[in-house]
Amino acid sequence: MKKVKILMGSDSDWSVMQEAEKILREFQIPVDAEIASAHRSPERVLKICQNLENEGYGVVICGAGMAAHLAGVVAAHTDLPVIGVPLDGSSLQGLDALLATVQMPPGIPVATMAVGKAGARNAGVLAAKIFSVGDEDLRNRLKQFRKDLALEVEQKNKKLFQP
Amino acid sequence: MKKVKILMGSDSDWSVMQEAEKILREFQIPVDAEIASAHRSPERVLKICQNLENEGYGVVICGAGMAAHLAGVVAAHTDLPVIGVPLDGSSLQGLDALLATVQMPPGIPVATMAVGKAGARNAGVLAAKIFSVGDEDLRNRLKQFRKDLALEVEQKNKKLFQP
Amino acid sequence: MKKVKILMGSDSDWSVMQEAEKILREFQIPVDAEIASAHRSPERVLKICQNLENEGYGVVICGAGMAAHLAGVVAAHTDLPVIGVPLDGSSLQGLDALLATVQMPPGIPVATMAVGKAGARNAGVLAAKIFSVGDEDLRNRLKQFRKDLALEVEQKNKKLFQP
Amino acid sequence: MKKVKILMGSDSDWSVMQEAEKILREFQIPVDAEIASAHRSPERVLKICQNLENEGYGVVICGAGMAAHLAGVVAAHTDLPVIGVPLDGSSLQGLDALLATVQMPPGIPVATMAVGKAGARNAGVLAAKIFSVGDEDLRNRLKQFRKDLALEVEQKNKKLFQP
Amino acid sequence: MKKVKILMGSDSDWSVMQEAEKILREFQIPVDAEIASAHRSPERVLKICQNLENEGYGVVICGAGMAAHLAGVVAAHTDLPVIGVPLDGSSLQGLDALLATVQMPPGIPVATMAVGKAGARNAGVLAAKIFSVGDEDLRNRLKQFRKDLALEVEQKNKKLFQP
Amino acid sequence: MKKVKILMGSDSDWSVMQEAEKILREFQIPVDAEIASAHRSPERVLKICQNLENEGYGVVICGAGMAAHLAGVVAAHTDLPVIGVPLDGSSLQGLDALLATVQMPPGIPVATMAVGKAGARNAGVLAAKIFSVGDEDLRNRLKQFRKDLALEVEQKNKKLFQP
Amino acid sequence: MKKVKILMGSDSDWSVMQEAEKILREFQIPVDAEIASAHRSPERVLKICQNLENEGYGVVICGAGMAAHLAGVVAAHTDLPVIGVPLDGSSLQGLDALLATVQMPPGIPVATMAVGKAGARNAGVLAAKIFSVGDEDLRNRLKQFRKDLALEVEQKNKKLFQP
Amino acid sequence: MKKVKILMGSDSDWSVMQEAEKILREFQIPVDAEIASAHRSPERVLKICQNLENEGYGVVICGAGMAAHLAGVVAAHTDLPVIGVPLDGSSLQGLDALLATVQMPPGIPVATMAVGKAGARNAGVLAAKIFSVGDEDLRNRLKQFRKDLALEVEQKNKKLFQP
Repeated sequence: MKKVKILMGSDSDWSVMQEAEKILREFQIPVDAEIASAHRSPERVLKICQNLENEGYGVVICGAGMAAHLAGVVAAHTDLPVIGVPLDGSSLQGLDALLATVQMPPGIPVATMAVGKAGARNAGVLAAKIFSVGDEDLRNRLKQFRKDLALEVEQKNKKLFQP
Repeated sequence: MKKVKILMGSDSDWSVMQEAEKILREFQIPVDAEIASAHRSPERVLKICQNLENEGYGVVICGAGMAAHLAGVVAAHTDLPVIGVPLDGSSLQGLDALLATVQMPPGIPVATMAVGKAGARNAGVLAAKIFSVGDEDLRNRLKQFRKDLALEVEQKNKKLFQP
Repeated sequence: MKKVKILMGSDSDWSVMQEAEKILREFQIPVDAEIASAHRSPERVLKICQNLENEGYGVVICGAGMAAHLAGVVAAHTDLPVIGVPLDGSSLQGLDALLATVQMPPGIPVATMAVGKAGARNAGVLAAKIFSVGDEDLRNRLKQFRKDLALEVEQKNKKLFQP
Repeated sequence: MKKVKILMGSDSDWSVMQEAEKILREFQIPVDAEIASAHRSPERVLKICQNLENEGYGVVICGAGMAAHLAGVVAAHTDLPVIGVPLDGSSLQGLDALLATVQMPPGIPVATMAVGKAGARNAGVLAAKIFSVGDEDLRNRLKQFRKDLALEVEQKNKKLFQP
Repeated sequence: MKKVKILMGSDSDWSVMQEAEKILREFQIPVDAEIASAHRSPERVLKICQNLENEGYGVVICGAGMAAHLAGVVAAHTDLPVIGVPLDGSSLQGLDALLATVQMPPGIPVATMAVGKAGARNAGVLAAKIFSVGDEDLRNRLKQFRKDLALEVEQKNKKLFQP
Repeated sequence: MKKVKILMGSDSDWSVMQEAEKILREFQIPVDAEIASAHRSPERVLKICQNLENEGYGVVICGAGMAAHLAGVVAAHTDLPVIGVPLDGSSLQGLDALLATVQMPPGIPVATMAVGKAGARNAGVLAAKIFSVGDEDLRNRLKQFRKDLALEVEQKNKKLFQP
Repeated sequence: MKKVKILMGSDSDWSVMQEAEKILREFQIPVDAEIASAHRSPERVLKICQNLENEGYGVVICGAGMAAHLAGVVAAHTDLPVIGVPLDGSSLQGLDALLATVQMPPGIPVATMAVGKAGARNAGVLAAKIFSVGDEDLRNRLKQFRKDLALEVEQKNKKLFQP
Repeated sequence: MKKVKILMGSDSDWSVMQEAEKILREFQIPVDAEIASAHRSPERVLKICQNLENEGYGVVICGAGMAAHLAGVVAAHTDLPVIGVPLDGSSLQGLDALLATVQMPPGIPVATMAVGKAGARNAGVLAAKIFSVGDEDLRNRLKQFRKDLALEVEQKNKKLFQP
């Protein structure tokens, strides 16, 4: 099975991006994370991009705040699917990161998630969905995951309204 | 090879969403499109979702404007990766569709593209990238596609500045 | 008298949506609440929608945050009036939920309230107003309610400026 | 059957607000329209409000642009349900009218629709839904209307993709 | 000398609007404040408006949050200059109140100030400026006030950078 | 009677700012206009400011687009009431000019109007209201003006709905 | 004298970015332009960046629309001052490009200009100002340029108001 | 070597603007700071501007919040490069200051940085970059600074992921 690489611009992003790692581990998808800033360590980003395919990665997840270029830069240097997680890292509350991540020009897509923790978790789920296109076993785990989400809603409902 | 399904909320969205179909045909990926509104024909959307896997689809692309729920509803009813294209269909110029598409809650991701034509074209490219995770031949065509993008930039540069 | 159903996407929304329940109880309108997520438990939402009319509900109030599809999905599956309360559930402070709730396409309206607690309370008042179209007694209670609002303003004024 | 009153701030709003009138006539609901500006003819607005109940109106639809106060002012002076349609009447493209209509304080709700024509049409549909709470025949017409919406989607799909 | 009337929608606005009262007292301009909600106590607002001129008021300052209609409603019912202070009273952080206050239609102006405390204080200063058009003594106090502002900047500079 | 000075940043603003001049002439208030850019001709702005009081001006109206500093700069250099009209002069559609005009710091107010023509016209009306504080005759003309606005609404209503 | 390099993401940007070239030629500063997309031709961008200093460039001007990463990427790969011009290239009207250009993280500044033509022209002026820090002759031309701006305002004023 | 002048509108801005001073001191560039408000002490701003060149300043950094005119006013009165730092000083979270700083009209550029501390620090870096155009030694220090940024990223990565 291919691996997922999580990249983030700063160590302070890890508390949010860890949501992606957690859910990938739940799906038993191999994953590792690195800090690499598109602006402060661009060579490092390029080097990581050049080795992604050879090292067995199948999807890249990039989390960044402010003028969040990380996902776009990675998407410009790899043919793997790139998932972008805009982070709330300025007084503009993630609107800057969202627009800088999602508004990619024709030819170089970034699969953009919601701002913050919800987006980080969904980046992991989307990576699993992408791998499941050719992996029936993973697809079945995703089916179970979706059933569990529905079950969890029912249980919360019972707890709150039928005590 | 699995197929791509393009869904859109209204026939007037086709002139934009056709960008996705065009690029998928260039990549020789089987694709077909349907109109299905999450609000006006919800049963139709459900029925399409229920048959996607059986009928050999691997990715769904959803284009919608305003309170663009189509991608979210499809993502709630299938385990396939869902790509959302927010369309500029109101005086708010696609900001409504962008936020309604991208801000998905934890568990149900929508891979959101840029608003409008650029996003529709990139939805097709992302679908190809997703299929290429398990398809080396397609990966090579994507590599060529990215080289061609770079070449095209150089050619435009020559035409404009070195006549 | 018909009943009001309050739906919300998550148990964490209850502290806000309870404002709707409280005011409905003040108006002696039968009301109950359930958790049902348009994205994580879509079948549950459909099932609730299918039974609303038979079980004697006359109005549905839906509270959701982020890409708030709950009200739109319910409006797509019932002919009852649907009231939407956008909740402040992300760094974008409810603007996402507001646009995702209010910008409905032609044919499927959602009666949208203000973001958050004010909106939840007003959802209850609007439900009462809707029932009062055919219920003179309730109309009279609404008249009294509006008089009490005015009185409350006068009392606060006295307390603050004429001690 | 009770009547619907459509109010709008300016004669130039009629081309948009007429969408509400059209759909109400389709539902055979009696409706008439008047121009009344909350800012330029406030006494006229008050007078209309005072007579609404006596003259047999059951719902008021208010369309206004810019700092759209009309719906809020009407809601402050009547106990009928008030539906607000924000209009795109300035360079800010209806965002001003949307916020000025929807962000009502606790106690005085305005059922807010989408900006512009879609919102005007939906105001008519919502008024019909409100009347249908106590009118089974109208409820049935609404059921048919919703079926027709779904049918129309299917027909457009056939026309575009199965010629 | 004419008086200034400060109106606000809720008693919770007083902590902000008091800034207007303070600066007016510094300028020795007679001022009093009242709570009057455009939505919850509209008759009270009308009654206050009808008496403003007779009771010797020359300017009205209105502070309100959310869909802030108070200033607009007052401007519709009096010929006195009306100053509007948008308040930060919702998750949208005063953008709603700003647009609802400033985007008045032709014929009925509201002199809009900044959101919150800065705006409340400036409402007092603007009222003084308005009265000073026909009052040379007040004009001189305003000149001194502006000189003091400049002096204060110099003193803060000295304190911080030349200790 | 004191005069009104209209300033604008560019000759292209005149088509909008002329609305202020027109309404002032209707009120028989002396008015003249000048082009003076806060950024391109700052000395010219200062010079105009220094002479305003001596030359008999009582109010200044400033129209500017983009980072609209003109009104703020004039307010910093005069004790006269300053009215700001934000103009729609960039792709951001006047939101830039609105925020740059209205968000003034404590001590230096700018009476901000709506973006564009409505705001320009209202700047003229507000100037008249300001002068009317000490001019009963002008107050009466304003009363008539407001009555005419209401009459005009009624006439438009008759023309449209009672032909 | 050092040269200025103008980079832009697409040939369609040239009509706007030419404003920068024009003003630089007026200041007799050597300048040339190239098309280089941060996303579609990233190697080309890197190569240009690596040669900038050797080839005698002193400032880089980058114009791009949507998720405008060009200036940020260039700033990450050179020590020259980088000026960014956000372009209006999507339905979001340049707000996306503005935030993606200006919100740079600590350490890697981009000197951001206004959206569109005004910004492109100002990029040229800023480049001239930067070169003038060590070039008194150029400083004098800038002084004259600023005087001419003021003169132009006066002439436009005469033409419009003193015919 | 020329000096850098840091100006800010209020003493409360110093905690943010100090970031600019710190980084300039790291680069051994002479720098001093002053408080000067474009609105409350305009003469002071003018006087500072008039002496900048004579006193050996080469760049001005201006930090201001709300309707942040300081950078624009300084740019209008000097030929030195002006760097603007928008500050988060109101409920609108710096969007007001950003637009008021960056949207300058043609002819008078302000090199705009990100909102808040990141922007203040980058203002210092940009000033260093500007001085380095004619100062190879400083250029070398900037090269080292950029290398250190990259190194710091690697070290943080090691600390977090390879303990």
